[in-house]
Amino acid sequence: MTAESSKELIPIAVDAMGGDNAPAEIVAGAVQAAREGDVSIILVGDPGPVEAELAKHDLTGLSISIEPSEGVVEEGEAPATAYMTKRNASIFRAASAVRHGRAKALVSMGSTGATIAAATVVFGTFDGIERAALGGPLYGLAPGTMVIDIGTNVDCKPQQLADYAALGAVLSRVVFGAENPRVALLSIGAEAGKGNTQTRDATELLKASGLNFIGNVEANDIPHGRAEVIVCDGFVGNVVMKLTEGIGETLSADIRKQLAGRVGQAELDEICQRIYDVTNLPEAHGGGPLFGVKGVAVVGHGKAGAAAVCSAIRTAHTTVSLNYVEQAEAELKRLRGAVNA
Amino acid sequence: MTAESSKELIPIAVDAMGGDNAPAEIVAGAVQAAREGDVSIILVGDPGPVEAELAKHDLTGLSISIEPSEGVVEEGEAPATAYMTKRNASIFRAASAVRHGRAKALVSMGSTGATIAAATVVFGTFDGIERAALGGPLYGLAPGTMVIDIGTNVDCKPQQLADYAALGAVLSRVVFGAENPRVALLSIGAEAGKGNTQTRDATELLKASGLNFIGNVEANDIPHGRAEVIVCDGFVGNVVMKLTEGIGETLSADIRKQLAGRVGQAELDEICQRIYDVTNLPEAHGGGPLFGVKGVAVVGHGKAGAAAVCSAIRTAHTTVSLNYVEQAEAELKRLRGAVNA
Repeated sequence: MTAESSKELIPIAVDAMGGDNAPAEIVAGAVQAAREGDVSIILVGDPGPVEAELAKHDLTGLSISIEPSEGVVEEGEAPATAYMTKRNASIFRAASAVRHGRAKALVSMGSTGATIAAATVVFGTFDGIERAALGGPLYGLAPGTMVIDIGTNVDCKPQQLADYAALGAVLSRVVFGAENPRVALLSIGAEAGKGNTQTRDATELLKASGLNFIGNVEANDIPHGRAEVIVCDGFVGNVVMKLTEGIGETLSADIRKQLAGRVGQAELDEICQRIYDVTNLPEAHGGGPLFGVKGVAVVGHGKAGAAAVCSAIRTAHTTVSLNYVEQAEAELKRLRGAVNA
Repeated sequence: MTAESSKELIPIAVDAMGGDNAPAEIVAGAVQAAREGDVSIILVGDPGPVEAELAKHDLTGLSISIEPSEGVVEEGEAPATAYMTKRNASIFRAASAVRHGRAKALVSMGSTGATIAAATVVFGTFDGIERAALGGPLYGLAPGTMVIDIGTNVDCKPQQLADYAALGAVLSRVVFGAENPRVALLSIGAEAGKGNTQTRDATELLKASGLNFIGNVEANDIPHGRAEVIVCDGFVGNVVMKLTEGIGETLSADIRKQLAGRVGQAELDEICQRIYDVTNLPEAHGGGPLFGVKGVAVVGHGKAGAAAVCSAIRTAHTTVSLNYVEQAEAELKRLRGAVNA
């Protein structure tokens, strides 16, 4: 631990109140992440419940503090209204901790809309970006393939798709280690020009982008991992994410029924668990960083348990330590120069 | 066979030249369908190759004739150009056979674009419908759930989505036997108003439609079969169809690898085949009728083998004998009256 301890710890603000399993699983995941090293944790939440959860863990040698907040923005609550009326809710206090330099990143399993609102308003967005986007790998058998946007921005302008391409390519390179990430546009035919008005217009921008743009991919190419960054309108990306989950759930249940009593219980459990896991990647992995904002905000799945929370905090750590935000902002500037040249 | 023979045979024009496995599998499937009864088959194609294939089968007691055509519209060929320059290609001659009353339906495994063009131009469309739409069940574990449109019309106007709802509801009731089919709009949130501009505007039309409109469903609801008719833009529907196929292909291969040597070969083959089958329904089933045209045109999968061709011909038979087209046209008129009232 001596070598580890000498490293500078990266302070991370964790929304202790957000998510279906808050605060218990959030606190447990944060403690786990602190044990794995290199991070100090600021748990943002109602002090009473958070202290009660912390008391269940052995915190010896860990850097964990509490930053008090009041209440939580619920799933489904209008984020803009919440920002006006609940300024001291956990997600807004966590964003504020980053804004004022007490933390380097925020992590939340709570309302995605609220986290996006907090990051957008409190961190601010890159020049020309109106609203943060969300994306990441969606399918466990193609873990190097990210889809952007997955539901934040619908009715996207073509320029937004080109922006996602640039922001995703940097994440793929910097955080996932892809050398020269292939960028593709999700469409309904492989040939350039196939698609709708939006994809046809975006194609021209992507061709001029200087990115490693390989053209269109179709939806069946996503599970085959035929590109590292696949850009699409948030409506379409959300359909891709949720359909993947739905197919996994129903197939897993069907296979269990079909094979009950015919193969060993251990094998059957393993098959079903694997089908579920690879089709529910966002739930299994902690989450991914928001795209387009001037700060690191990792948005996790509402159903996250301690392991996923820990994983989300590790993602935040990596994203900070590799300077993703600075590199993404620079790449976006370059892209704007390239397509306007 | 005496009772069967006394029934009036429904004449069906089959495009013998269209599809990856034409003419061999098309002819074999047509022969099979004729054996199952109630149809007479008009094979439309280049006489030489079609006769050569027919010679391989025992045709005793079957009603099968050849209607000569010249050439075929290839996948990827521009349908409008093909219609101008290849008027005697198999798909156009097959449509013409229906138009002139020699056949009651056409079936093709060839270029979907060409079949749509042929049906649109030669049959004509219902009042207010610009172009035929495509749809049907996509997922074997939700066989009663059809998705419309699946790739024919992108950048749909809200009125088109309402039209698909009416046309799909009639098919679901008349051909699939659903008593009061639930109609839903595919969106990215369950609450009314969640979605994009297109879905928000369509919601108002659907509420006024008099259909059994249950509101929005999300993509994970499709595999769970939470509605009989799910309407969406053709871009989104095509993504749903192809993603389903892609997930099935990759999962099936993965499970085979994970379990090789650990469960019996028969069980392993069965699991993988089942995963493939339920996620490749359009390939396994012959195909479905086009929506919005004044005639029955069943569009099949390019990869169809004889069994799928036979199944497509049976679908055409059912669609004709239950008067789907007449009922759909009447329902569309009623819908237009309802939403304009």
